[in-house]
Amino acid sequence: MKARVTVTLKTSVLDPQGKAIEGSLRSLGFDGVESVRQGKVFDLEVAGEDKAKAEADIKAMCEKLLANTVIESYRVEIAG
Amino acid sequence: MKARVTVTLKTSVLDPQGKAIEGSLRSLGFDGVESVRQGKVFDLEVAGEDKAKAEADIKAMCEKLLANTVIESYRVEIAG
Repeated sequence: MKARVTVTLKTSVLDPQGKAIEGSLRSLGFDGVESVRQGKVFDLEVAGEDKAKAEADIKAMCEKLLANTVIESYRVEIAG
Repeated sequence: MKARVTVTLKTSVLDPQGKAIEGSLRSLGFDGVESVRQGKVFDLEVAGEDKAKAEADIKAMCEKLLANTVIESYRVEIAG
């Protein structure tokens, strides 16, 4: 089963990397850019056909390894 | 207008970072993990209300800065 996890910084957390990208885009002439925030995606393949179990497992992976829940939030999408 | 850009490695490209995460997840006891590939997301806010123009601009940003199109592919989603 395929799943995608999206990890993004919480809105209250500063994102210097995003700010740097924003500056670079502006200096390339993209004046319309108002803000950029960067996050991560993880495309996982997990064994088994039980969607609910897969989702529970992946949430546990996020809590333990994939996301730093102090400053990041995550979203799990199970494909088809 | 808000948009999300997802940049992922092309499937033919090796992903050592994803492999390392896969190994870490296994050693944490998540045996069901078959593969992990890591990518990036950019959450952008751009000025203007013209969806088509925003999409064209963001594709140009991807080609010029956000993605390395030799090894990465990107997807642009414009929010409502």
